Amino acid sequence: MPDKALEVLGICGSLRKASYNMAALRACTELLPPGMSLRIASIADLPMINQDVLDAGMPAPVKRLRDEIAAADGVLIASPEYNFSVPAPLKNAIDWASRPPNQAFQDKPVAIFSAANGPLGGARVQYDLRKILVQLWAHLLPRPEVFIGMVSTKIDTQGRLTDETTRKFLTDLLAGFKDWILRVQRGKP
Amino acid sequence: MPDKALEVLGICGSLRKASYNMAALRACTELLPPGMSLRIASIADLPMINQDVLDAGMPAPVKRLRDEIAAADGVLIASPEYNFSVPAPLKNAIDWASRPPNQAFQDKPVAIFSAANGPLGGARVQYDLRKILVQLWAHLLPRPEVFIGMVSTKIDTQGRLTDETTRKFLTDLLAGFKDWILRVQRGKP
Amino acid sequence: MPDKALEVLGICGSLRKASYNMAALRACTELLPPGMSLRIASIADLPMINQDVLDAGMPAPVKRLRDEIAAADGVLIASPEYNFSVPAPLKNAIDWASRPPNQAFQDKPVAIFSAANGPLGGARVQYDLRKILVQLWAHLLPRPEVFIGMVSTKIDTQGRLTDETTRKFLTDLLAGFKDWILRVQRGKP
Amino acid sequence: MPDKALEVLGICGSLRKASYNMAALRACTELLPPGMSLRIASIADLPMINQDVLDAGMPAPVKRLRDEIAAADGVLIASPEYNFSVPAPLKNAIDWASRPPNQAFQDKPVAIFSAANGPLGGARVQYDLRKILVQLWAHLLPRPEVFIGMVSTKIDTQGRLTDETTRKFLTDLLAGFKDWILRVQRGKP
Repeated sequence: MPDKALEVLGICGSLRKASYNMAALRACTELLPPGMSLRIASIADLPMINQDVLDAGMPAPVKRLRDEIAAADGVLIASPEYNFSVPAPLKNAIDWASRPPNQAFQDKPVAIFSAANGPLGGARVQYDLRKILVQLWAHLLPRPEVFIGMVSTKIDTQGRLTDETTRKFLTDLLAGFKDWILRVQRGKP
Repeated sequence: MPDKALEVLGICGSLRKASYNMAALRACTELLPPGMSLRIASIADLPMINQDVLDAGMPAPVKRLRDEIAAADGVLIASPEYNFSVPAPLKNAIDWASRPPNQAFQDKPVAIFSAANGPLGGARVQYDLRKILVQLWAHLLPRPEVFIGMVSTKIDTQGRLTDETTRKFLTDLLAGFKDWILRVQRGKP
Repeated sequence: MPDKALEVLGICGSLRKASYNMAALRACTELLPPGMSLRIASIADLPMINQDVLDAGMPAPVKRLRDEIAAADGVLIASPEYNFSVPAPLKNAIDWASRPPNQAFQDKPVAIFSAANGPLGGARVQYDLRKILVQLWAHLLPRPEVFIGMVSTKIDTQGRLTDETTRKFLTDLLAGFKDWILRVQRGKP
Repeated sequence: MPDKALEVLGICGSLRKASYNMAALRACTELLPPGMSLRIASIADLPMINQDVLDAGMPAPVKRLRDEIAAADGVLIASPEYNFSVPAPLKNAIDWASRPPNQAFQDKPVAIFSAANGPLGGARVQYDLRKILVQLWAHLLPRPEVFIGMVSTKIDTQGRLTDETTRKFLTDLLAGFKDWILRVQRGKP
C-alpha cells in the first residue's frame, strides 16, 4: 500500500487576479512528482496584522491559514518582489502565521520561487524570505533556485505558463522539494 | 524673517493602539530642534496593496498618504521588528507610496528608529528598511542609529516615554535629521 | 559500546591574538555536552582568495582547512562584526572552502555566535553569515541565537570567559547544536 | 577657466589577473563624461585585516589605499559576487579603510557595478556593499543599477569589454555618478 501523498500548501505573494506568480503556482499543480499534492491557499481575506485585533479573538481567515500551514507537509511560496523585498500581503501572512501560540512555520519545509518582469526575476525577495523563515525555524530548500525573469513573455493570455524551460525548472524544484520534505521528516526528533 | 520650519511626517510601523513605537514617536514632538515640526500620519486605513485595486482608482487613504509624504521635508519612521524584518503595515505603506506615478519617497530625506522589548531594540528592521528606501532614492540619515531595547520599561502607563537616556538619543537623532534635511536640500539639482 | 563522539571544528572570525571571540570559543571546549569534542582551526595562514593562486595549485593551508571542515561533524563559528558584516578573514576562509571540487560546507551542520563590545553583540554578522552559508547548503542551527554584547567586561585579563550568564548561553547553544547535528545526520539520504 | 576634473578611484573586488570586473573597470576609463578622470587602485598587496598588525604600525599598502580614497572625489567599485556576498579581498580593503583614525569612506560618493557569469550579474554583492558602505556614511549612487550578466561573452580575448549595450549602461552610470558627486559636494556643510 502506498504512503500517503505529501500535501503541499501553495502561497502566492501577490493579490492581483492576473498575478504571474499565481499563474506559475497553478502550473506547479501539473508538474508535481508522484506522491505529492498541491493546494493553493488564499491570503486575500486576512486583515492587516495588529496585536489588538488578535487580542480581541483570532480572525477566522487567520485561523484557517494557520491551520492549513500547520497541517501541510510543506509550503511552496511564489512571490513577486515589491520594492526589493517581500510584498506586504505575503509579509502579513507570515506575520499572522508566526504569532503564538503554535507558530505555524516551526519545523516546516519550505520552498520558494519568484517571478518578475525584470531580468533578475525577483531574486531579492527570495533572500529576504529565506532570512525571515529560517529564523522561524522553517527548513528552506536551498536549491535549485528558480527566478523567472521577463515573466510576462512566458504566460499566455489564458494565464497559463507556457515557457517550457521554466516548466522544467519548476519540475526540478518540485522534485527537489519532495526529497527535502522527506529528509526533514526523517530527521525529526 | 525666519525660514519656514521644516515639516516632518512621522510614520509608525505598528497599528497597535498602545504601540511603544507610537509612544516614542509622540515623544519626538517634544524633542524637536527649533525650526522643525512633526506631524504623525495614519496608515491604519490603507487597504492591502493590490494593483487591481489601484487600477480601479487610487483609494483615498492611499492618495492622502502619498500627498503627505510628497509635501513633507522629511519622513521619520518608528518601527518594531516583526519576524526579523519590516512589519506588514509599514511595508504596505511603502509599497503604496512607491507606485507610479510620482513615487513618493523619491529624493526624500528619511530617518529611522526602532523600539522593541528584546535587547537588540529592533535593529534588524532598520537595515531592511534602509535597503528598501535607499533603492527608492530616499536619502537615509546614516547615524546616529537609535535602537530602543527593553522598551516596555521605558514607557509609563500613560504611554509617555519617560527614560531620559532614550529621550536624549532621540533629541540627537532629530537634531541630526534637521542637518541632514538641509544638506539634502542644498545638494538638490 | 558508546557512539563515536561528534567532532566539531571551531572557526574564529578575528585574527587578533587577544580576540574576544577566540576567548569565547576556547571557553566552549569546557562547556560541551557529553559525546561532543571541539577543535579550533587556524585561518591565519590562508592566502587571500584568488582563482589564479588556486589554478597554480591549492595552497597547503587551504587544503588543510577544507579537509578539516569536510571531516568535521559540524562547524562552530565565533565572529566579531566588521563594518556591519562578515570580517574579511572569515569571508576569505568561506570563499576558499566553497571552491570546487568538493565545496566543504555542503550538507554541513553549522552553529554561529558573535561577540562584540557594542550592545548588539555583533548581531548583524550572524544574519549575513546565515545568508551565505545556507546558500552553500550548510544546515544552520536557527536557535538559540547567542549575541555576546559588551564582551570586554566578560573576559578576564587571562582571556578567560568568566561571565556565568554567557557561559550558560553557550552551554545551551552547544547542547542544541549536538541535537541539530544528530538531526541532520538522521535526515541524510 | 574650467573647474578641476573630478578624480574617481576605481577598486576591483577580484584579484584575478584576467578579472572580468577589472576589464569592465578599465573600459570605464574610455566612457567617462567630460570633467571626470578615473584611476584604478591596487588592493592585491594589502595584508589580511588584523588589529594586531595595525597596532604595530599601519602597513604601507594600507596607508596608500586610505590616502587614495581620502583624496578621491568619488570611488567606483566593480565586483564579482563570491558566495552571494562581498569577495574577501574587497571586504578586506573596506575593513582596512574604515579603521580609525579618519575612516576613509566618511562622506565619500560611491558608485557600484558588478559583473558575473550567471544571469543575475552579481546583483547580490551590490546590496551587501550598499548596506556596509551606507553605514560608513558613504553616499551611494542609487541608480542606475548595472549588473553585467553572462560577462564572459562580453569580453574579448584581449580583455576588452566589447558589448555595446554594456558600454552604454556603464556610460550612463558614469554620467549619473558625476552628477551625484557634484550633488554631494554642494550639500556638504
